[in-house]
Amino acid sequence: MFSNALPGLTDELKQVSQEMEVLLPKEWNRGEVGSIIQAVLAGRGKGYRPSLLLLMGRLGPDYPECKKRLYRLGALVELVHMASLIHDDIIDDSILRRGNPTIQARFGKDMAVYAGDLILGQVLTILLQDNLQQSGLLIAKTIKDMCQGEIGQAACRYRTDITDKEYYDNIYGKTASMFVNVCKIGGIESGCDEETIQCLGDIGLHLGYLFQIRDDLLDFSANNLEDGKPARMDFQEGIFTLPVLHTFLDPACRGGLEELVKLAKQGRLSPADYTELDRLILSAGGFDYAVSMAEQHRAAIGQKLSELPPSKTVDVIRYLVSLLELPKLRIGR
Amino acid sequence: MFSNALPGLTDELKQVSQEMEVLLPKEWNRGEVGSIIQAVLAGRGKGYRPSLLLLMGRLGPDYPECKKRLYRLGALVELVHMASLIHDDIIDDSILRRGNPTIQARFGKDMAVYAGDLILGQVLTILLQDNLQQSGLLIAKTIKDMCQGEIGQAACRYRTDITDKEYYDNIYGKTASMFVNVCKIGGIESGCDEETIQCLGDIGLHLGYLFQIRDDLLDFSANNLEDGKPARMDFQEGIFTLPVLHTFLDPACRGGLEELVKLAKQGRLSPADYTELDRLILSAGGFDYAVSMAEQHRAAIGQKLSELPPSKTVDVIRYLVSLLELPKLRIGR
Repeated sequence: MFSNALPGLTDELKQVSQEMEVLLPKEWNRGEVGSIIQAVLAGRGKGYRPSLLLLMGRLGPDYPECKKRLYRLGALVELVHMASLIHDDIIDDSILRRGNPTIQARFGKDMAVYAGDLILGQVLTILLQDNLQQSGLLIAKTIKDMCQGEIGQAACRYRTDITDKEYYDNIYGKTASMFVNVCKIGGIESGCDEETIQCLGDIGLHLGYLFQIRDDLLDFSANNLEDGKPARMDFQEGIFTLPVLHTFLDPACRGGLEELVKLAKQGRLSPADYTELDRLILSAGGFDYAVSMAEQHRAAIGQKLSELPPSKTVDVIRYLVSLLELPKLRIGR
Repeated sequence: MFSNALPGLTDELKQVSQEMEVLLPKEWNRGEVGSIIQAVLAGRGKGYRPSLLLLMGRLGPDYPECKKRLYRLGALVELVHMASLIHDDIIDDSILRRGNPTIQARFGKDMAVYAGDLILGQVLTILLQDNLQQSGLLIAKTIKDMCQGEIGQAACRYRTDITDKEYYDNIYGKTASMFVNVCKIGGIESGCDEETIQCLGDIGLHLGYLFQIRDDLLDFSANNLEDGKPARMDFQEGIFTLPVLHTFLDPACRGGLEELVKLAKQGRLSPADYTELDRLILSAGGFDYAVSMAEQHRAAIGQKLSELPPSKTVDVIRYLVSLLELPKLRIGR
């Protein structure tokens, strides 16, 4: 995915991967702990978050000297992301993640809780050891925001009156906060001025929203093999995203949708119900609404990028954003 | 429990409690997060860990100036302990903790995972913000040791060949590491010399072992109301403690015990099986063995305390240790 964008980025991501292995204590290689950590590392994603951190780190005057810190912080951010995925799997009771068995499916719920905590404990160790105070505080904020986003989302489950504001608050915590903070960390470590750091944070914010809304839309696309999850899991689990929220607002569709919510809550949705769900959302223009919101965030990113001095790095970031294509929803069309 | 020991300690524990409330962000008071945190705070224990930290903190020359830091670190240690209890409950699928409903029973598994992580995120924030590097690293080590102890214990479940060494490794992580590190933190913050800090760590180590072996024995006492858990849960869950390990070594009892292990694994232990379990352990001298091990650790604490210059504080620590009475096991006797 990124190798086309910039050969240098691929090399730097390799440095981040090496750093991750360095950060994980050798003694963990033995026994159960080692097996879990290896399984987690093997299931790693594409490294979108460290990539952003590295790219933003190129924008400041101190870039050449701060490279090592950027690799280390990229690794720490990826470790936090991994820990959060492990803990999320416990809750979803997921069997698969990105097509691979989850830690809890392979090793049990116990192991998943402690493997995540163990990684967080190691992140804490490195942040203190390396005196990464300023960036460390942003990582700590990210961890707390992620929890609050998940708690907020859980509190909204199956509620048919949740607002766009509540939805945005939840995805800010779940996803966007991490994007904001990795962008800011890149700017801080490379010595950007306050105004630029704020601008990078704003880019991260809109990118996080775009990323999550796209993810929500992917959940509605019929063959969602990318992360190994079956389609329309969110609705089944009572997590209502923009297409659904918009449909609640349509008086002609609300009643029908509420019926489906009742069935979802009882775990009794049939294939015909899913077709009806798609029909209602299409009829209310729910998909188009979510797509238009996503495009608004994409436009905001473009606007913020244009405020930065033009550079090869800015072009690469623009290219990375363009890779986040929205799914074509062909269902019922 | 502690108010008899020393009125001053009770006052200082109040300072720790206040500090805990200060450390928990005001915005958490709203909504679900607030309800969870309040429930966790309400279910707090007696504060054995912060008490130890405070007492050890009286032994160094800098005691008067480091008081505020001791209160803060006492609060952080208690928060880490709380987070670990919340996460342990997820695994035990416990309904009660100290007679109160657990977080997962009241709010669901999702909330329990994230409430624990949220607390850890806040601990990380404060450690970085207050530049508590040296003590922070010990807290980070404790978090990792606790995870490794639990992972090690899970890997030993239902194994009939586990050794005393493996048992001790697991309880070191689960329990003793925290005791070692709170004692060291007290010594470090109050400016004790290296040798004294090592001695305080050793006291913590043996106290941790004594504490856990006592807890294991309490699990065998018929009316274990203290922490709201039913008796002999450990054996049922395949967590074999010293009385059981010792019984495996007796050729006359091993066969019968292995039969009970099979039943435990299948969740099919009857009341008669529990009576048989007690009979086998008594016959092999398993309870006496565990008691003698606990008393060895108590003696080692006494030895280490006698190496410190005599003081009122040392007497108080000695008194606190004496409060850890071993249960009278009357079963079948």
